[in-house]
Order: sequence, then structure tokens, then C-alpha cells
Amino acid sequence: MWFGIIMAGGSGTRFWPLSRELYPKQFLSLDGGSSLLQGTIDRVMPLIPQERLWIMVGPKHEAETRRVLRLAEREGLPAKVFVEPQSKNTLTPLAVAAACLARTDPEAVLAVMASDHLIAPQEKFLALLKQACSIAEKQDVILTFGVLPTRPETGFGYIELGEVVRDESAGLSPVFRVKNFVEKPDRERAESYISGKRHLWNSGMLAFRARVFLDELLQHQPEFHKTLRAYADAIGTKEENSLLKELYAKAPQTSVDYGLLEKSKNVWTISADLDWKDVGSWSALDDIAEKDESGNILRGNVVSLHNRNCILYGDKRILATIGLKDLVIVDTDDATLVCHKDEAQKVRDVVNELKNRNRVEAQEHRTTHRPWGHYTILDQGPNYKIKNVTVNPRARLSYQMHLHRSEHWVVIAGTARITLEDQEIFLHVNQSIDIPKTTRHRIENPGKVPLVIIEVQNGEYLEEDDIIRFSDDYQRQTEETRTGPAAGEKS
Amino acid sequence: MWFGIIMAGGSGTRFWPLSRELYPKQFLSLDGGSSLLQGTIDRVMPLIPQERLWIMVGPKHEAETRRVLRLAEREGLPAKVFVEPQSKNTLTPLAVAAACLARTDPEAVLAVMASDHLIAPQEKFLALLKQACSIAEKQDVILTFGVLPTRPETGFGYIELGEVVRDESAGLSPVFRVKNFVEKPDRERAESYISGKRHLWNSGMLAFRARVFLDELLQHQPEFHKTLRAYADAIGTKEENSLLKELYAKAPQTSVDYGLLEKSKNVWTISADLDWKDVGSWSALDDIAEKDESGNILRGNVVSLHNRNCILYGDKRILATIGLKDLVIVDTDDATLVCHKDEAQKVRDVVNELKNRNRVEAQEHRTTHRPWGHYTILDQGPNYKIKNVTVNPRARLSYQMHLHRSEHWVVIAGTARITLEDQEIFLHVNQSIDIPKTTRHRIENPGKVPLVIIEVQNGEYLEEDDIIRFSDDYQRQTEETRTGPAAGEKS
Repeated sequence: MWFGIIMAGGSGTRFWPLSRELYPKQFLSLDGGSSLLQGTIDRVMPLIPQERLWIMVGPKHEAETRRVLRLAEREGLPAKVFVEPQSKNTLTPLAVAAACLARTDPEAVLAVMASDHLIAPQEKFLALLKQACSIAEKQDVILTFGVLPTRPETGFGYIELGEVVRDESAGLSPVFRVKNFVEKPDRERAESYISGKRHLWNSGMLAFRARVFLDELLQHQPEFHKTLRAYADAIGTKEENSLLKELYAKAPQTSVDYGLLEKSKNVWTISADLDWKDVGSWSALDDIAEKDESGNILRGNVVSLHNRNCILYGDKRILATIGLKDLVIVDTDDATLVCHKDEAQKVRDVVNELKNRNRVEAQEHRTTHRPWGHYTILDQGPNYKIKNVTVNPRARLSYQMHLHRSEHWVVIAGTARITLEDQEIFLHVNQSIDIPKTTRHRIENPGKVPLVIIEVQNGEYLEEDDIIRFSDDYQRQTEETRTGPAAGEKS
Repeated sequence: MWFGIIMAGGSGTRFWPLSRELYPKQFLSLDGGSSLLQGTIDRVMPLIPQERLWIMVGPKHEAETRRVLRLAEREGLPAKVFVEPQSKNTLTPLAVAAACLARTDPEAVLAVMASDHLIAPQEKFLALLKQACSIAEKQDVILTFGVLPTRPETGFGYIELGEVVRDESAGLSPVFRVKNFVEKPDRERAESYISGKRHLWNSGMLAFRARVFLDELLQHQPEFHKTLRAYADAIGTKEENSLLKELYAKAPQTSVDYGLLEKSKNVWTISADLDWKDVGSWSALDDIAEKDESGNILRGNVVSLHNRNCILYGDKRILATIGLKDLVIVDTDDATLVCHKDEAQKVRDVVNELKNRNRVEAQEHRTTHRPWGHYTILDQGPNYKIKNVTVNPRARLSYQMHLHRSEHWVVIAGTARITLEDQEIFLHVNQSIDIPKTTRHRIENPGKVPLVIIEVQNGEYLEEDDIIRFSDDYQRQTEETRTGPAAGEKS
């Protein structure tokens, strides 16, 4: 059985302000289409059905990942969202996925891919994936995907080819033993790799059987393997959650490349002739987006006069630009970035600076998504906060209460069913209701179109963690749910 | 009697997006202090009391001008705001001011100045103004202020000096006949003016007696003088307004320099050794604002990394900047400008482009000031609009009604007295009220602190001109008020 393991960690700093800590790169659409995560799922599904996809995410990204899956509205069983208790690079989540799958099928093939890469053409990718999984099925090796380099890129790691295992043949790609993994090279070396034709880009994609991976782990990370085994043995018991947490706490903060592949002798690589892009920063958008006749990439509400080679991302507000060259400008509701393309890597420094200043703009967008819909903070000040709250059709918030704020709702679209203590009230457009402090209440959209409510909060404390939930459709915030969002999520 | 005539026309394009058509340069603070208009009033008041200041404004700027005067909260009689029916350069408003003043005092001295210049030092300015008014009082001349040039500026007009009338003497500046007015010179010529020492910058400031000005006008603009006279004769009658409108409709679209001074033989200039700045564009801020060690001018919510010689104006949102050089960035609620300093003049093109696109961002800020306070549009969409409405203490909106929208108010600060048809209702923080369509209503702040209300509008038409006023404290929108704001102003 073949499984797809989609790695959706990511910290959300490189594409700030479009990405945020709670909304990293895989949730963005960089080419104007669907999100990178969505694109990854779509890409693999012809070969591996949805119910055999595992998406490995951190706790902060669970809700948004589930939203992406919901939005796709696919039939059949959903993909599995595996919530890692904390972020631990790539070795740990892969080991955990392998251990979980090995319990029922040690010979399960895991096809591992990043959630935030762009890959084309689709047919070639599927053929490669199929070939790789078939090899992994039969050989006791970990198979990497080495992409044929098209330029002396210094931002990627490389795979040095060893002896050939399989020659190229009709419709199949050549396969090699891996001689070496090479860190990001300097320019000169990168150029020699191109001319030498013995190096491929290390794409991070892998294929292997669960048992093979675990055997290698036993050999090269015996301590970690022990903890992993303790966890695997407890799956399905009440110890499962605590042992997973313990495993992550103890696990090495290391990549699968460094922690396993570089140590192993059983690593092969399939030579992938793909258009593969790991868009690593704003300036790298130049490689993927369409440009106007002056080399500018334009999106959104932009007035562009006399600019050259700029990346100009407007949003709702007017972004007016004159006489600029080689700049990246990204305008969002609550933050604007203006950056020289050569300095696009330093966006991280901005995010760190914002964290130092305790600014929420490092973490979140002004619009926050929830399982039931989303809300946008329109205005806030001393003792008040105004939100535009959108509830999806047939969704409802938790039955809840606040100790420190009263709420006042005006319906501006759709129809609301409000529960207020033991009363049920229907509210239509233009109707309103007061929710005093400490009264139990719930908003529900029983209808077929989105319900939009303007919420005016008054009180001495207006943070999201002033909430007591009495019941919830989304199993949040209860003792039982191991992977629920952090305390204080608006329900 | 000496009068100060403050010219406050201005179109608000050069400092977009901080300035707007309804909020031009004189309302801005460019040096971080009070507005330029306020600074102009403060500058002249030690010599000419407030009640003898006339501020000449277009109809669109009356409300904001009155607000500036109100904010200053000076004792005594207020300055006069003279609302021009339309914009007609500088000759017409000066002629009108002279004609008005001449009716009661033909020998009144008019000291004319722009509302949007920066002048220092204050003591020197006052000494010059005093000397100029004294000369104007005795001599049948129009006295211009020629500023000693400090650099070969090609952006100003120059005054060529004729024979000396008064030499420099203790505490007094030399005075010359004017030989010629010179248009903006090229670089070479400007340099020769500096070395030749026979040219001064034409500051636009003037001093003259009303009768002298009108006599010159009779001689050089006889047609215009005739219309002016007809208007002046009708002042105080019911014809006054219509004749003023007619005068402006017929008046030449010309400057006082071109239409009168260049033709007259009775023009002198006082040599002003002043630090005088007519800040004409964003890039000119370099001359006036404080810089950090890398030459950047920073204001507001800015993260600045590795920038040089930039002007970075943040507002409430985060403005993050990396690796920039010689740029102007101005971030406002609803529009951001990013512009190379060398192209700062082209901001006009942006404003024109926005007008072509029918974008309100060319005209207005998201926050609009009214005599009773101000409001900010927080959000708007199909059939709804959300505003944060602030009513000043002891102020009230008009008693009014809407045909197409209902309104819903929640008080978030202060106390409101609401009139709803014949009912009077007090609303406190956290209380709300529904105002159905076609009901007469009024908001009043009877208290001592600002009243803040969140207004949710629902309806099929939500423009400001859906309003029928029944009474108003500010005499707006009635048949009688000749200079009221355009139809559709929110009351």
C-alpha cells in the first residue's frame, strides 16, 4: 500500500506579511491559483487517494490545514491531519509516520513530499512518483528524488551520484546510488556541479517502506528508535498522547538528511527531470509569476508608474508606486513590506523585530479563520473591539460565555439562530441583540448562505481567552483532545 | 488698521496620500508640530490679532479650516473664514478682500501670506512684517517680500531688484523698487542670480493698502474692477451672494503676480533675510525634517532595516522596510505611496489616475471631519457600512432622516442623548438603539468627554446624500447658506 506523507511544518517568516506564524507558506497561493498545500494534494491524488495522505502539521496550523481540506470538498474519506505536538524538523515526523504505518503494514510505502513546492509537468511527476514507489516497494533502500539542475543554484543542497543502479529506459528515469549529500555550495562549486553532471538538486522528496526506514533508524539513531518504539507500542492506549509528547520532547532537532540519509549506505536517488521550485523568498517569485513589459509582477489594487522589475502585491487598499526598481512591495490589511530584492532574505529579521516588539502582526492576519467561518477585527480601542464575523452555512460556534465582556450583534447578511440561555431567537438582516456578560450564548447559521454579523464587544478585558465553553461541534478546548488549539481560541 | 490675509487654496495633490483633495497641504504637519495653517496663524498673531485675520478658502475646505480654528481654542473673536465660491488663483481673492475691507476703511493695510509655508526665525519675521506694514501704511505701493536666496533654486520665481528705496539700518531691512519679476530660471541663470546679488526669491507675501491695490486694479484690470465694484456695492444686500458667484465666474484665472504686480510700476520689495520654505513635494521634506544617522526621516509605526536617505511615514499599520535608498514611502489607512525621490513630482499623476478610476482615495481620507466631530469608515460591503462616529462634547448632529437606510448604534464611550421622533433617550456605554428608515433622529453628546458610537448601516443605498435635515446647528444644506458644503454632507 502506498501512502503520501506531506510535510507541512514551516514557520511563516519568509513570505511575511502575506505569511504569518499561524499562516505559513503552504497556505499561500504564489502563482495566483490554489494554495501550495492544495496544489500538493491535487498533484499526488491521481496516484495515492486522499484517505492515504497524511499531512504532518504543527498544532498552530491544524485549523487552517483542516480548512484547506474542507474547502476542497472532496468526496470519500478525508486525508489524515497528523498534529505534531511541537516542531522538530523532518526526522521525527517521518519516523513517527513510519512507526504508525508499520503497526498495520510494515511494508507500506511512504512517498514523502513538501507541502510548499511547485512541481510541473504533472504527468512527468506522476510517472516519477510511480516509478519511485515501485522501486521502494521492492528494494530495501530509501529513495531520494534528485532534480536535474538547470542553473548553478547556491541556495539548494545537492546529491552526488554514485554508481548507476538502473539506466534510463523507455518512460523510466535512471536511478543511482547516492555517493554523498552536499550542503549549499558556493557559486564556483555550483557551476562545476552543472558541468560535471554528477550532482542533482536535493528536492527533499523521498520514497521508502516503513520497515526499511525504521531499520535504518535503529542502526543510526538507536536512542531515538527506542523512544519511538515505546510510543508505537502505546498507540491506541491512553498513554498514546503523553508518549507522543515525550517522544517529541526527547527527539533530536534534526533533518532526515542529516540525521539518517547521510549516515545510511542504502540510499538511492531517482534522477528527476522536473520543473521543481522551492520558492524560498519574495525575490524568487521572479521565477514563477507573469510579468508586465517592464518586468513587474503586479497583483491587487496597484497603480504602477515607471517601475522596473518590481514585485508589487496590493490588497484592498491603494498601493501607488512611482519610479521604483528591483523592489518587493507587499501590502496587507495590517502590515506593508517594502524591500529590495537583494535583501528579501532579511524579511526574517523584520519578523524577529516584530516579535521583540510583541506585535501580533508577526503571528496572525487581521482575519482569523475558524472551523465555523472567520472573523476580521475592524477596530479596537480601550474597552471595545469591533469584529466582522462570518459563519459558514450550517455551522455554529460553541455554546459559550464570557466573564469580562458583553457583546452586541447586528446581522448584516444571512439569518442567525441565536441561543441565549434557554431561549432560541432568529435574527434577520438589520436586527440586533445584546449578549450581557456571563450569559450563555451561541451563534448558528441554519441557512444556505453565509451569515455575517457585526460584533461590538464592550468590557474591561477583550482577549480571546475570556471564554468558557459548554459545548462545541469541533471538539476544541476539552481535556480529551490532545491536539486542540492553544487556550484562548475564539469558538 | 492692519489685516492678515491668509491664502488657503491648494489642491492637495502634491502630498498625497497624506493630503487629499478635501485635505490639502495647509492642513498637514510636515515638521511634526501643528498644521501649516495653524503655524501661519500662530506666526502672525503677535502682530495682527485673530479677529483681523481673513482665511481665504475654497468651499471644500471650509469645514476643515473651521475645525483648525476651533481646535486652537483661542479666546476672543474668531478669525474670518472667507469661502470662495470656486478656486480662482490669487488675484481674485486678494481683490475681493481688498474691496471688502475698503468699504469700511480704504486705508486698511493687508498683509498677505500663504497658509502652507514654513518661516523662521519668528522674531525676524515679525520685525519684517511690522516694517512692511508700516511702509505700506505710508506709501502708495504694493510691497512684496523678497527672500535672500541661499542656493540656486530653479523651482521658485525671482524678483529683480531696481534702485534702493531705503538702505539697511539698525533693525530694518533694505527696500528696493522692483525692476522685474522673473519666472523659474534654469540652473545657470539661477547661479548667476546668486552671485549677482540683484535677485531675491519671490515668496508670495505682500503688504499694501486696500485703496492702493484697488487703484492698481482699476488701471490694469478695468473690466474685472467693474465686476468687483458691483459686488462690493452689494455687500450686505440680498444680491451679495449671487454677485460674488458671478464675480468669481467672470474673474480671470490668474495670479496676482501675473495679473497685477508685473504690470504695475508701484511695486517695491523688502529684502527678507529669512529661513523661508515652500515645501513643494515629498522629496523637499529632506530640507526640514530630522534624520537618523543613515539620513532617513522616520515617523509612525516603522521598522527600518539598512535603509539610506529615505522618507518613511508610517501610520497605525506596520511599515517594514529593508535595503532601500532614496525612496519616499507614505502609509495611510486606505492608501500607500512608494516613490523614488526623483519622481516625487509625479504624485500628481497618481492622483489623476485615481480620479480616472473614480477612486475616493484621491478626494478623502477614511476619516472625515465634521463640525460636530468626525467619523471613520471601518468596513463596507453590499448593503452595509460600519462607522466609528465620534461626537465632540456638547455637540450634536443635525435632526435628520434617511430614506434608504436604517441605522443601528452602539455606544462604546461617553453618553448619548438620542432624539427619535418625539422621544428623548439617553444611551450609555454598552447600550444600543435601532433607527429604522424614515424615522427622524438626532445624536447629541450632552457630556464632557467625547461620545463614541459604532454605527451599522443597512440599506440598499448608503451614500452620504441620503439625508433630509430638519434642523442643524451648523447652518448646512439650507437654501440660505451661500457657502455651505456640497450636497450630501453627513450631518
